[in-house]
Amino acid sequence: MKTYLDCLPCYMNQAIRAGRMATNDDKKIKQLLDQVGDMIKHIPMENTPAESGAMIYQKIKEITGVEDPYKTIKQNSINEAKALYPELKEIINKSKDKLLTAIRIAIAGNIIDFGINKKFNLVDDVKKILIQDFAIFDYEKFKSELEKSENILYLADNAGESVFDKLLIEELNKKVIYAVREIPVINDVTIQDAIDSGIADVAEIISSGVKAPGTILNQCNNNFLDLFDTADMIISKGQGNYEGLSDINRSVFFLLKAKCSVIAKDIGVKEDDIVIKSINL
Amino acid sequence: MKTYLDCLPCYMNQAIRAGRMATNDDKKIKQLLDQVGDMIKHIPMENTPAESGAMIYQKIKEITGVEDPYKTIKQNSINEAKALYPELKEIINKSKDKLLTAIRIAIAGNIIDFGINKKFNLVDDVKKILIQDFAIFDYEKFKSELEKSENILYLADNAGESVFDKLLIEELNKKVIYAVREIPVINDVTIQDAIDSGIADVAEIISSGVKAPGTILNQCNNNFLDLFDTADMIISKGQGNYEGLSDINRSVFFLLKAKCSVIAKDIGVKEDDIVIKSINL
Repeated sequence: MKTYLDCLPCYMNQAIRAGRMATNDDKKIKQLLDQVGDMIKHIPMENTPAESGAMIYQKIKEITGVEDPYKTIKQNSINEAKALYPELKEIINKSKDKLLTAIRIAIAGNIIDFGINKKFNLVDDVKKILIQDFAIFDYEKFKSELEKSENILYLADNAGESVFDKLLIEELNKKVIYAVREIPVINDVTIQDAIDSGIADVAEIISSGVKAPGTILNQCNNNFLDLFDTADMIISKGQGNYEGLSDINRSVFFLLKAKCSVIAKDIGVKEDDIVIKSINL
Repeated sequence: MKTYLDCLPCYMNQAIRAGRMATNDDKKIKQLLDQVGDMIKHIPMENTPAESGAMIYQKIKEITGVEDPYKTIKQNSINEAKALYPELKEIINKSKDKLLTAIRIAIAGNIIDFGINKKFNLVDDVKKILIQDFAIFDYEKFKSELEKSENILYLADNAGESVFDKLLIEELNKKVIYAVREIPVINDVTIQDAIDSGIADVAEIISSGVKAPGTILNQCNNNFLDLFDTADMIISKGQGNYEGLSDINRSVFFLLKAKCSVIAKDIGVKEDDIVIKSINL
């Protein structure tokens, strides 16, 4: 997926939001906004939004010296999600279709996204998504592919969401490799965040090698690329991974909530829709 | 009121929104966003947001060649407001405090603001504002000043809101001069818009001389400045006029809804609050 014109003002919005996470120094935030404003004209529109996003978050690190502005927020999100884990596990266990309920919960976790200018209430939003209609529902394909698969590559998105991913991975009941970002970017999962979320109990955790908030294949390390080529099934969570993989030539299942108008338009759904979207199967 | 850091990303948001009103040509919109991005570092933070806003809208005119991107929207807003006029007039006539009800309706009209990234529903929002508590309620001062005044300078804001202003002007029952922008900027009222709104029936219409979306005194023409100095009472509608006049040394009554967090913070109220705010009385 390429960068849309609407992404450009969004970079400025993200800059001030993340800048304020990193520092209270208004001079540094002004410097950040000036420099991001300057960058707008240099952003290659053929890049994915996640690649350009990486440039913004890199700039925040440079100017503020803060490596992980969302560290505390990520820890809080993980703790909040962990507190919900037993109740959600019970909901899954009591449901008629455990796998589908676990998918819904994993998608609900996708609302924990601080790259987006939207407020969320985890408990309320989980309740909504448990009964929300899917705008794209490639669930039969998902089940059939899952049945045939021995090993699954699971592309992580946000910290906190990762705890909900654990619930889905438990229902998959296969060998799963959980791929995360190489460095902290927005509130995306890193190896440490995945460990803190309890993922090590249910999957092998690896880094994709990517420093952007998405799976950008030409930035991935060889280990990830080998797994990407050979995995029986790929499950991709969230917008950033979709941005990087929407145009590739292999089967991927995207589980996400379309949280911004640009992604919704690209997928062909409405903002706030949820999807299980299969490509190239 | 000075420019806040949060205003800077907002200029990019306004640029794409107004750019799309002016043209469907994505190349021109890209050029606009590139140039507004470039401008960010040059925006004097001691300026009012309305002054910097004027630079953005000037840029839109330069790049697209469209003098009045909001022309159709303004006409639609005026027509929609006119259709509500008889019903609102009846609400005022039946109310216990006609003046206060007319003030509420004039403030409700202030939601017709296309400079703000918020959707509105005129009928629903009027209903809400008719019963909403005021966050600042200098109504006794307003009444006492009105009683003593013979001539009133009324500073207009948005097209459509202007029809609701007519209802308030009718209740003021004084000689009123209605001051509008010199040129089209966002959906602010121009002389033609004021005439189309029926203001000529109840007030004299003049231009303030200002090309920005607010009352910037050092841009006003001499006629306006004379009236500004000599008027018995000044009623200022909306955010843009507040931005230009919040720090001056004469009595002004601000009637507005705080539609963005920056204005709300500056006034000391919450977003979406409504106020009758008196200064220097």
